[in-house]
Amino acid sequence: MTNPYLKQYLMTAGPTPLPPAVSQVMAEPMLYHRAPAFIEVYARVLARLKLVFQTANEVQVFSASGSGAMESAVANLVRPSEPALVASCGKFGERWAELCDAYGAQTIHWETEWGRKVDSGELDRKLGDHDAVEVVFTTLSETSTGVVNDIRELTEVAHRHGALIVVDAVSAMGAVPLPQDEWGVDVVVSGSQKALMAPPGLGFASANEAALERAAAAPGRRFYFDWERTVKGQRKDPPDSPFTPAVGLVGALDVALGLIADEGLEAVYERHRLLGHATREAARALELDTLGETDENANVVTAIALPDSIDGTKVPKLMRDRFGITIAGGQGHLKGKIARIAHCGYFGAFDIVVTVAGLEMTLRELGHELELGAGVAAAQRVFLEAGAPVSSPG
Amino acid sequence: MTNPYLKQYLMTAGPTPLPPAVSQVMAEPMLYHRAPAFIEVYARVLARLKLVFQTANEVQVFSASGSGAMESAVANLVRPSEPALVASCGKFGERWAELCDAYGAQTIHWETEWGRKVDSGELDRKLGDHDAVEVVFTTLSETSTGVVNDIRELTEVAHRHGALIVVDAVSAMGAVPLPQDEWGVDVVVSGSQKALMAPPGLGFASANEAALERAAAAPGRRFYFDWERTVKGQRKDPPDSPFTPAVGLVGALDVALGLIADEGLEAVYERHRLLGHATREAARALELDTLGETDENANVVTAIALPDSIDGTKVPKLMRDRFGITIAGGQGHLKGKIARIAHCGYFGAFDIVVTVAGLEMTLRELGHELELGAGVAAAQRVFLEAGAPVSSPG
Repeated sequence: MTNPYLKQYLMTAGPTPLPPAVSQVMAEPMLYHRAPAFIEVYARVLARLKLVFQTANEVQVFSASGSGAMESAVANLVRPSEPALVASCGKFGERWAELCDAYGAQTIHWETEWGRKVDSGELDRKLGDHDAVEVVFTTLSETSTGVVNDIRELTEVAHRHGALIVVDAVSAMGAVPLPQDEWGVDVVVSGSQKALMAPPGLGFASANEAALERAAAAPGRRFYFDWERTVKGQRKDPPDSPFTPAVGLVGALDVALGLIADEGLEAVYERHRLLGHATREAARALELDTLGETDENANVVTAIALPDSIDGTKVPKLMRDRFGITIAGGQGHLKGKIARIAHCGYFGAFDIVVTVAGLEMTLRELGHELELGAGVAAAQRVFLEAGAPVSSPG
Repeated sequence: MTNPYLKQYLMTAGPTPLPPAVSQVMAEPMLYHRAPAFIEVYARVLARLKLVFQTANEVQVFSASGSGAMESAVANLVRPSEPALVASCGKFGERWAELCDAYGAQTIHWETEWGRKVDSGELDRKLGDHDAVEVVFTTLSETSTGVVNDIRELTEVAHRHGALIVVDAVSAMGAVPLPQDEWGVDVVVSGSQKALMAPPGLGFASANEAALERAAAAPGRRFYFDWERTVKGQRKDPPDSPFTPAVGLVGALDVALGLIADEGLEAVYERHRLLGHATREAARALELDTLGETDENANVVTAIALPDSIDGTKVPKLMRDRFGITIAGGQGHLKGKIARIAHCGYFGAFDIVVTVAGLEMTLRELGHELELGAGVAAAQRVFLEAGAPVSSPG
């Protein structure tokens, strides 16, 4: 039996903690997916997703994880034996390459060093070298490193070369600004369980007309993730999901999107900016580096480089078992080298205070010399200077 | 504002009502999918699914609707331009043909008249005529008509012709016996939201070694629904889902499968048998036909033929709006001709009593002459004669 007073703090970049109102709505009785009571919820969710994606596109909802939504983009846009350019800068970007390979593309996988951004000038050169590329796949926030790419620039470059651009915004949608229509981003995919504050199990794809046309020109090889079928169903009056939707998760998302609407999208971004900034300031006060080219847009997750003097693989386990705080470690070659603290979704100032305090205690326990409270104080100062209480909605 | 005293009764074959314990577990705080607290739940669900599927196969769990699990079977087994035989007897069986077409198979779609079973002798002849067929797709319980096919016989015939058989048990798993390993069924797919008493959003595929080998021989064209990837992850110690699982739904399923284990699989089937029998007896007492070749295995849904004298399309709407009882009408050419009452999942005797009473009142309102209470009395007699209280777990 676990100790109920070892209170649990979920600080991973997905699943993220749920606001109580979101949790509680899932305890309500099940609805028939064709009943008016559910259709009302479903229609509202579809409308609210457009606001968060900042698009007039139909934001397609799949009962699937974010990877399912990513697969929908590949299944609908990639053609066998034709080139597709994947511009990755970390583990999640690599998934695009795996997907393109699985669908038989001639995948050009251009890997930027983990911790660095995808460079738009270099993308320009790559597309110049490979002028048959019609689709570019990249990532908004690379969750393995915390780096946030400049999608506006990358989109301009892709379009200059006549290519469509597809952006994985699974962890960043609702934490980092991505005005899809204003920037002309062709496809944005995301998931429910990160900044959107809902449980895992829903994936989203927002494809513009150019992307939908490309998909329609090469049908087949897909069914569940077929965009034409999904868009057609969602555009009916009343909207209709082609397959039984995950009714409970849609209800949860409805409440979560309502909280985002109440807070206001700009305020949501600003809260995330502040959380990221406070976490980085805490790391700096502890004389720990943060990974990568982070800036004021690095709102999703902070990757803190761990001291060489300790066994970094022990950090997440000790923080969890001893202090009840669940963070993520590094993936791939960063295993044991970094601690990743998420701040995308239902997070407020004191989630950062708790986590930084727990990290300080963990590092001390593992033999690293540091001044207890120094990181916490740095975060406190950021929140005080912001002048307003930083609390999550809910 | 809806009237809270117009109590709601969900009598559709998916989503089905949730036991309170299943609903409530979803209101608990979110877990990280790699944390021990979730892995324990996940491992228990994987083990319990094997008991319900009556198999030693790895029962693969996808965050997707049942159609996603169906697609996994087609994506893993169908090869472009090769023949695939679909033996359908209703709307859900047709989905196999749509899926095979989408994946480029040379689909042989053999349609049995809606309301009749797929005939094993005829399957024998079809496979004799098309001896290149390597995979047969069919349905355990055809939800559009209530007919339950004899999968044991169909499996024997398919195997005699050297073909694998894939069975859609989305609505029937946990309501109708399907001992997969004993009968040698190669692939069984199902979903969470029917007799398994969990919310929609999880799909399952149980593939035996022969099916997994066929899939492995032709990789590609799939990623999210790839069996090899999923089985490999689930067989790790501890088991690992290749994509973020729908954590909350897995937790709900864990509770639901625990209820099934507590009741005992044979008792679960027996309860469903009794519910189906009582519903058919009620229809008979009301001098209404039930559709199709129903027998003591027709445990999932009862399709009642509506009197010609009334406008049958009005029945579901009136029952819902006036009495709060949600049933399904007919699909395709059966629209307006039948009322479908589900009894797969969290259903007990008085769900049938309520629904039959509501149907009687609805038919009377629409101008059909009948003796109020006659159907109810017939159902009551069935339950009394069963000698034991028929109550759902929970």
